[in-house]
Amino acid sequence: MSQESSERTDPPDRREGDLTRTGMALKHDREWDYELDRIVAEVDERGAETVGLQFPEGLKRRGPRVADDLRAELPDGVTVMMSGQPCYGACDLDTDLLRRTDVFVHFGHSPMKESEKIIYVPLFSNVDVFPIMERAATEELAPAEDDPDVGLVTTAQHMNKFDEMRAWLEDRGYTVHVRKGDDRLTHEGQVLGCNYASADVDAEQILYVGGGKFHPLGLAMEHPDTQVVIADPVNNAVSVADTEQFMKQRYAAVHKAMDAEEWGVIFCTKIGQGRWDQAREIVENDDAYLITMDEITPDRLTNFGLDAYVNTGCPRITTDDGPQFKQPMLTPQEYRIAVGEEPLEALEFDTFHGTW
Amino acid sequence: MSQESSERTDPPDRREGDLTRTGMALKHDREWDYELDRIVAEVDERGAETVGLQFPEGLKRRGPRVADDLRAELPDGVTVMMSGQPCYGACDLDTDLLRRTDVFVHFGHSPMKESEKIIYVPLFSNVDVFPIMERAATEELAPAEDDPDVGLVTTAQHMNKFDEMRAWLEDRGYTVHVRKGDDRLTHEGQVLGCNYASADVDAEQILYVGGGKFHPLGLAMEHPDTQVVIADPVNNAVSVADTEQFMKQRYAAVHKAMDAEEWGVIFCTKIGQGRWDQAREIVENDDAYLITMDEITPDRLTNFGLDAYVNTGCPRITTDDGPQFKQPMLTPQEYRIAVGEEPLEALEFDTFHGTW
Repeated sequence: MSQESSERTDPPDRREGDLTRTGMALKHDREWDYELDRIVAEVDERGAETVGLQFPEGLKRRGPRVADDLRAELPDGVTVMMSGQPCYGACDLDTDLLRRTDVFVHFGHSPMKESEKIIYVPLFSNVDVFPIMERAATEELAPAEDDPDVGLVTTAQHMNKFDEMRAWLEDRGYTVHVRKGDDRLTHEGQVLGCNYASADVDAEQILYVGGGKFHPLGLAMEHPDTQVVIADPVNNAVSVADTEQFMKQRYAAVHKAMDAEEWGVIFCTKIGQGRWDQAREIVENDDAYLITMDEITPDRLTNFGLDAYVNTGCPRITTDDGPQFKQPMLTPQEYRIAVGEEPLEALEFDTFHGTW
Repeated sequence: MSQESSERTDPPDRREGDLTRTGMALKHDREWDYELDRIVAEVDERGAETVGLQFPEGLKRRGPRVADDLRAELPDGVTVMMSGQPCYGACDLDTDLLRRTDVFVHFGHSPMKESEKIIYVPLFSNVDVFPIMERAATEELAPAEDDPDVGLVTTAQHMNKFDEMRAWLEDRGYTVHVRKGDDRLTHEGQVLGCNYASADVDAEQILYVGGGKFHPLGLAMEHPDTQVVIADPVNNAVSVADTEQFMKQRYAAVHKAMDAEEWGVIFCTKIGQGRWDQAREIVENDDAYLITMDEITPDRLTNFGLDAYVNTGCPRITTDDGPQFKQPMLTPQEYRIAVGEEPLEALEFDTFHGTW
């Protein structure tokens, strides 16, 4: 997950609902339902004078059109504002805009925690998932007669098809294991980049249905003894998650950090990314310094001149962006390994539980 | 002013007080007084359990040493935290860390607005300013017998020498014109990158004493009919501020933006960089969309896909970083010119007044 990617294409002519080349790297056209009626009704009911809109990176380009539609419907005098902060999940609500507005609408992620002032508008993909599930079952899943147990997980944007996916597998003789996970997750079978509690099921193979490798790689790191089969309907690709490169990078970072004399301990101030107790515990050591920030980027750490960093915020910054940082960036457990409090063999993927 | 510069050198062996190669591009060694006794006394008096420290970019490297010294003096159980947010002035207090801490210390800038919870620790340069003032007077100032009137301005870090600078000029026969400016400025003769009200004096030449060209270029743009002589004791250089390149860029940006069909209007959420009324006024037009953010960077705007932007936050992002943005970035007045509400000849440097 690269924060503030600079990828860009010029605004192409696009028809309504077309999200291709918007930075989401999705090949399928989509029609979204932005639930404008619900937003207008809430604004009306609360007599709101200010409305804040927050979109994930890939949907920001739709922001002005959503604002147009809302301004056409809302009374004169209601001010619509969009968040210009980066946004990578429901853990990442723009709390400044939230404070400034009477109604705050967060698009594209399922709720991490409900609040009266926040409207969460989920956005579901309309891509057909079954052709790629067919290929995944044929090519990579163990046949039901050999191993009927399979876990099933997906992301928020495919949750609308989850029951059908499950029935599809059951029709083919599988016993499908699903669970809701912990309170960071809204739906049964849902995974986040930082939380795979829904995959703690009694099966040696798990089918992930969704776009990209970001989620299944985390899943495979969290469950190293499980076969994670990826059915990607967006890129029309089937594969098995391979964590080898990630794990090599983790071991390399831990080894490099063993020489560190001074540590920066990052406490992330994003609403759903703070782990205060973990940060506080490490900072009790004299050679560790607590640093607070929202976006965690190499540029922001450079000037402190410390030898290594521990990131108590989003685990995916550590695992996915880690190599971009000039000093080693470790998870809290990797820190304990680097300073000799835990053995190297204990290394596990860092996950994030609970809300705020 | 480049936000989040990626310049960096490896941590060299450095003796106490040595700030060379710390990113400040200053050639002189310095001894700073961090006023630790005052901070310790305040923590004690308030029974504070948490202390937040905020440093400008060039001083962040000193942060861990200041934290060391404080932790040695403070009672066990007091947690010291450093802000990892970028920091470019007293307009840019880390309000998140401010909320999280009982005592908040802002280093290196003079107060923009006092608050009981905030300790401002000014940091003064010990560089000798008089040799370079001598050169500036000889090479660029009009001789006192030809034009005795001269304005005198400097930055917060040289304020400790201001009275001596003034006396030095008076000794050479000049009539020195100084004023305090508006309530955004703490000291008589002080300038900020966004505010030159202290230079509204009755003189056709102004002597700026301080490092770099950032401040005198703003001063010369704000006062285009005044000769701004730069006496830079840090880089040992004398010159006259030349705004030609900047002004060409401004005109080019305005011309380019005249074709814009959709505008993004940026409201900056930094505590001392918000101009709500100006943002709100522009957004009353249907083709303008309000976007809120703290750091204003090209990456954050890219995904909105608008044609041009109006920055109501820090004017120096517009003038100094403007060319880095892919779409034209205008000041509020430049927007009015681009849409035909004011003539091109009216173009003035954008300055920021008041506090919050």
